[in-house]
Amino acid sequence: MKAAYLTEKMKIVVRDDREIPVPSQGQVLVKMEYCGVCGSDVHFYKEGKVGDTPAPKDFILGHEVAGTITALGEGVTGLQVGDRVALEPGYTCGKCEFCKTGRYNLCPDVQFFAAPPVQGALQEYVVHPADMCFKLPENVSTEEGALVEPLAVGMHAASQANVTLGNSVLILGSGCIGLVTMLSAKARGASKLVVVDLFQKRLDMAKKLGATEVINAKEENVVDRVREIFGPLGADIVFETAGAIPTIQQTPFYVKPGGTICLVGMAAESMANYNFNQIMMKEVTIKSVFRYRNLYPSAIAAISSGAIDVKQIVTHRFTFDESDQAFHNAVVNAQDEIKEVIQF
Amino acid sequence: MKAAYLTEKMKIVVRDDREIPVPSQGQVLVKMEYCGVCGSDVHFYKEGKVGDTPAPKDFILGHEVAGTITALGEGVTGLQVGDRVALEPGYTCGKCEFCKTGRYNLCPDVQFFAAPPVQGALQEYVVHPADMCFKLPENVSTEEGALVEPLAVGMHAASQANVTLGNSVLILGSGCIGLVTMLSAKARGASKLVVVDLFQKRLDMAKKLGATEVINAKEENVVDRVREIFGPLGADIVFETAGAIPTIQQTPFYVKPGGTICLVGMAAESMANYNFNQIMMKEVTIKSVFRYRNLYPSAIAAISSGAIDVKQIVTHRFTFDESDQAFHNAVVNAQDEIKEVIQF
Amino acid sequence: MKAAYLTEKMKIVVRDDREIPVPSQGQVLVKMEYCGVCGSDVHFYKEGKVGDTPAPKDFILGHEVAGTITALGEGVTGLQVGDRVALEPGYTCGKCEFCKTGRYNLCPDVQFFAAPPVQGALQEYVVHPADMCFKLPENVSTEEGALVEPLAVGMHAASQANVTLGNSVLILGSGCIGLVTMLSAKARGASKLVVVDLFQKRLDMAKKLGATEVINAKEENVVDRVREIFGPLGADIVFETAGAIPTIQQTPFYVKPGGTICLVGMAAESMANYNFNQIMMKEVTIKSVFRYRNLYPSAIAAISSGAIDVKQIVTHRFTFDESDQAFHNAVVNAQDEIKEVIQF
Amino acid sequence: MKAAYLTEKMKIVVRDDREIPVPSQGQVLVKMEYCGVCGSDVHFYKEGKVGDTPAPKDFILGHEVAGTITALGEGVTGLQVGDRVALEPGYTCGKCEFCKTGRYNLCPDVQFFAAPPVQGALQEYVVHPADMCFKLPENVSTEEGALVEPLAVGMHAASQANVTLGNSVLILGSGCIGLVTMLSAKARGASKLVVVDLFQKRLDMAKKLGATEVINAKEENVVDRVREIFGPLGADIVFETAGAIPTIQQTPFYVKPGGTICLVGMAAESMANYNFNQIMMKEVTIKSVFRYRNLYPSAIAAISSGAIDVKQIVTHRFTFDESDQAFHNAVVNAQDEIKEVIQF
Repeated sequence: MKAAYLTEKMKIVVRDDREIPVPSQGQVLVKMEYCGVCGSDVHFYKEGKVGDTPAPKDFILGHEVAGTITALGEGVTGLQVGDRVALEPGYTCGKCEFCKTGRYNLCPDVQFFAAPPVQGALQEYVVHPADMCFKLPENVSTEEGALVEPLAVGMHAASQANVTLGNSVLILGSGCIGLVTMLSAKARGASKLVVVDLFQKRLDMAKKLGATEVINAKEENVVDRVREIFGPLGADIVFETAGAIPTIQQTPFYVKPGGTICLVGMAAESMANYNFNQIMMKEVTIKSVFRYRNLYPSAIAAISSGAIDVKQIVTHRFTFDESDQAFHNAVVNAQDEIKEVIQF
Repeated sequence: MKAAYLTEKMKIVVRDDREIPVPSQGQVLVKMEYCGVCGSDVHFYKEGKVGDTPAPKDFILGHEVAGTITALGEGVTGLQVGDRVALEPGYTCGKCEFCKTGRYNLCPDVQFFAAPPVQGALQEYVVHPADMCFKLPENVSTEEGALVEPLAVGMHAASQANVTLGNSVLILGSGCIGLVTMLSAKARGASKLVVVDLFQKRLDMAKKLGATEVINAKEENVVDRVREIFGPLGADIVFETAGAIPTIQQTPFYVKPGGTICLVGMAAESMANYNFNQIMMKEVTIKSVFRYRNLYPSAIAAISSGAIDVKQIVTHRFTFDESDQAFHNAVVNAQDEIKEVIQF
Repeated sequence: MKAAYLTEKMKIVVRDDREIPVPSQGQVLVKMEYCGVCGSDVHFYKEGKVGDTPAPKDFILGHEVAGTITALGEGVTGLQVGDRVALEPGYTCGKCEFCKTGRYNLCPDVQFFAAPPVQGALQEYVVHPADMCFKLPENVSTEEGALVEPLAVGMHAASQANVTLGNSVLILGSGCIGLVTMLSAKARGASKLVVVDLFQKRLDMAKKLGATEVINAKEENVVDRVREIFGPLGADIVFETAGAIPTIQQTPFYVKPGGTICLVGMAAESMANYNFNQIMMKEVTIKSVFRYRNLYPSAIAAISSGAIDVKQIVTHRFTFDESDQAFHNAVVNAQDEIKEVIQF
Repeated sequence: MKAAYLTEKMKIVVRDDREIPVPSQGQVLVKMEYCGVCGSDVHFYKEGKVGDTPAPKDFILGHEVAGTITALGEGVTGLQVGDRVALEPGYTCGKCEFCKTGRYNLCPDVQFFAAPPVQGALQEYVVHPADMCFKLPENVSTEEGALVEPLAVGMHAASQANVTLGNSVLILGSGCIGLVTMLSAKARGASKLVVVDLFQKRLDMAKKLGATEVINAKEENVVDRVREIFGPLGADIVFETAGAIPTIQQTPFYVKPGGTICLVGMAAESMANYNFNQIMMKEVTIKSVFRYRNLYPSAIAAISSGAIDVKQIVTHRFTFDESDQAFHNAVVNAQDEIKEVIQF
């Protein structure tokens, strides 16, 4: 079968050189149909590494995936050959204190698609634990199934910040993660949803997806506009999804006393010069987000019920054979792109 | 000015015999424009009492109200003459442990419109504390302002039960409270919203307002249908809004292990023969609802943002002079009626 | 090796007829040293069944156990031969929604010592998953290790009810579960701890273990005494640990508005005639308890730090060969007995 | 009557030049008996200002107070002349969204003793709202009553961080606030309580009050010791009470994945260079503390029940006439002093 290999920086080659794997006990074999392109994948493509972690030789990217089950390992119940499924990419130990307390996203022994040394899912077939494959209902497409992964990040952010009906919400950053966070906050009933970004195209997308207002930080004074929109006290909840030091640093000034800041975007540099006195005077809570947990079923239900229309975030589509082009485009047209999807 | 007096059981008389009151410090004078008719009002009308509490002589009903400010008492800031406002009907002491901890709906010294001996709001003008008058934005009508009160009950129910994105919800009872609970659960992102009632007209209304399925308990086996819809484990959250002993008793069998039952409808009789072993085997939580707290701003925001379209629950409209007719209709056509509104 | 078999109602026979088992991958072999006698074990002994579940032929009881590791299966890390460990008796699937969300006590596929068809731990050796064996620090005895199981029930009850510093707490029932609940509530900082029972010996034990007051329901009017001690509003938190219909039915009258009732004791009959109007007027929360989850490490830490002195609950000790006598005594002297421990 | 005036930097003069005030409606007159000396008071004394807020002319300090009621204003119920009471120093509006939601510590219209322009309580008599005066039970001394104020800060910190039974806790700073935080965490059942400071005297006090271990940051490598004591994952909860930039900056490295950092000490400088990547990789929550709310009754109950022995934190006692000396000592012997109390 074919797989897409990152052979060197900025180069992906599709080769037909792998055996179709056989599902072990408790696993299923899934024929891949859609794979979203994530920022971390693009980082490996562009830099050959993420942080201090180099891409291994012939590394296979991809972890936002959905497909159809073609074989069942022993002991699998509740799934059938022919079921369309979304694959939760991180498989955890089930035995550590984090797994047992339901916070499996913190499991130190996680096996996660495309997190070295684990290979990713840009392959025609993968085997995966059955309990990490979530069946899609009829009215959810397989492409939407691949988008469950980024959506789950936004839903986890909204859950960590405990967005609820009637809340006023400010979102810094209008990339993919900013938008799925917005969609999730909206689906939980937030009544004011304001998105800030530097690029108008992204803000237009935010507006289309339901932002009540957008602020172009290149053209407007964000502090003034935030005060105008939210009043002098600020927003109930502020999400930082841009992963930029300046936006992280602004969060204490936008949030209401007693409110919550939720950090979603990981910055390239680790250190931010931060005004903790503002935080303390306002008795603010800062929450943070590392991946997600226990959200695939809810995310699929939210798509199915119409509470979240996630497919709108897709801006570009490519075939499997165009994988290199997909990543190349993600590097060169970063500002225009929200979410690319590769179809097998 | 005119007021509507309950002079005897089943008889309301509008008389023009009261002085327009003068707002004291911190109060505003509000010209009433809309008043919803609540089940407890109807109970006073029909029985001359609620539980052991008789209606006083010449009792004025009405507590779901909105109008326009016509005068300000001393020291009022943040409101203006001409502002349209929804009036939160219960005024509390601000000093007891319940008030101080934010649970003012439990304040033993509450003064609540139309809760004897406090007169209600079916009067052309009332004075009210400014901090209990919530300004309506332009896109929220004054009639919608009067509906904030019942909506707040539904929002409190959804909040007590902590409905969240992706939850599956069963609602027993499709009267006004059942429907506002459904609207609130939906606005918080519930993906499955199933409503049970005995009357098809009400169920049709539930369907129109967004129920994913309805069950007519006269014609279908509710236990079987619930299992069919929610699967063998049951619903994440079960709301009892019918206030009937049989529906209260069914709740343990419909809820999922680890799930929540929320009691919203107060039954006429106090005792229910209840299966607590089911509750314990499933480790279920039972929450309950007494009025609401801190929800007027969120409710108004939710109406304004479009998250909740509450005006759809109004089935009948009357003028102030038709007050007796409004209540009479509420008694004789109980099953057809969801929410009546009296316009001044 | 020896095991203790329930051969018929009211008869346990110790026979030396079993092979010492061999630990599989991820398991350890534990030489049993202490086993507590639990009410559910006694129920099987006395009635030959619990509820509708009959004891299988040659059933082995016992699930409150601790011992010393004598062999490790493959892949076990973090434990050593010679380690003294407490055994959490329920082993769960790790894959269902309950396990993944950290509520593994609700896992439908649990394997629990002495829950048919799973054999119990009254055997000289058992194999057990390593991740369910918790190492005891030097200052915690192996006997205390066996008491972690009942203590975990009390800690889970206190956690479900969210007992916190300064709370006033009423506990109905002064048996083993009432007392471990009291110890847990006290260790979380409850300042008023009142225990009600019918038997003075048990109340004396409650007093010795830290109850601030005890009420003998045979000799005193409980309603009056509760009002005297807690004031007219009632207790912040009421635990029902007696598992008796009359005490379940009293709970709405003892709890404060906005307070919490926590049901810990499972009643023999399933139905209670309950005053839900009281619950709703006071906006009370009812929590319930099914076993426990994620509490062994905390329980061991609490014993080790001195926050909880659990060994005081032991009233009777027996050798392994006296197993029948231990259970016989538990049946005939039920009122005198709090916790019996069998030493191997 | 006498009052203690801050007439200039480093100078307090006691003068007998004020009228005994008369309690208005809802107020009581309290004869002061004890007043604790707080760091913010000392700041005004030493610098003549706190932050940008200058001390007004003839400013009266003091807000940690208790005394005996000598007269009641109209309408006061529940208190009697002769009652010994602790005075909660901040009086709030009761009408803003913060007050109504129970977070009155964030009320923008608070009147707080010794927060300019409000005079403090170093006067022989003060009038105070009755609902902010909490009666002391017989077994709580009036001096302990004055210590309820700092204790409430520690209890609020422990509550914000949600310390619970079995938690491992690291506290940076062993001054008064560090110690009351430790006492509160211990009373909630924390099993590991490690305190870090630069001064051995303070650490000795921590040890005496119940720290399981102390770390002298002058003599030991804190990172190594923390890892040794808590293991490689770190502490469940880290409190920063020193209000120093370096200790704030260390918090991400001491806390466990999924754990909580709670900021209690306000730093003189506002900006800290902070590693948010650590926070996000570990999905840590940062909570903060501004004063306290709704804790006087619990704090008094905790002292009365013996759960917290707060009087041990008093290191120095002065008479009212020695007020200047008390503050002078607090400035010059800062490191030796935990809590000074002035007795009237």
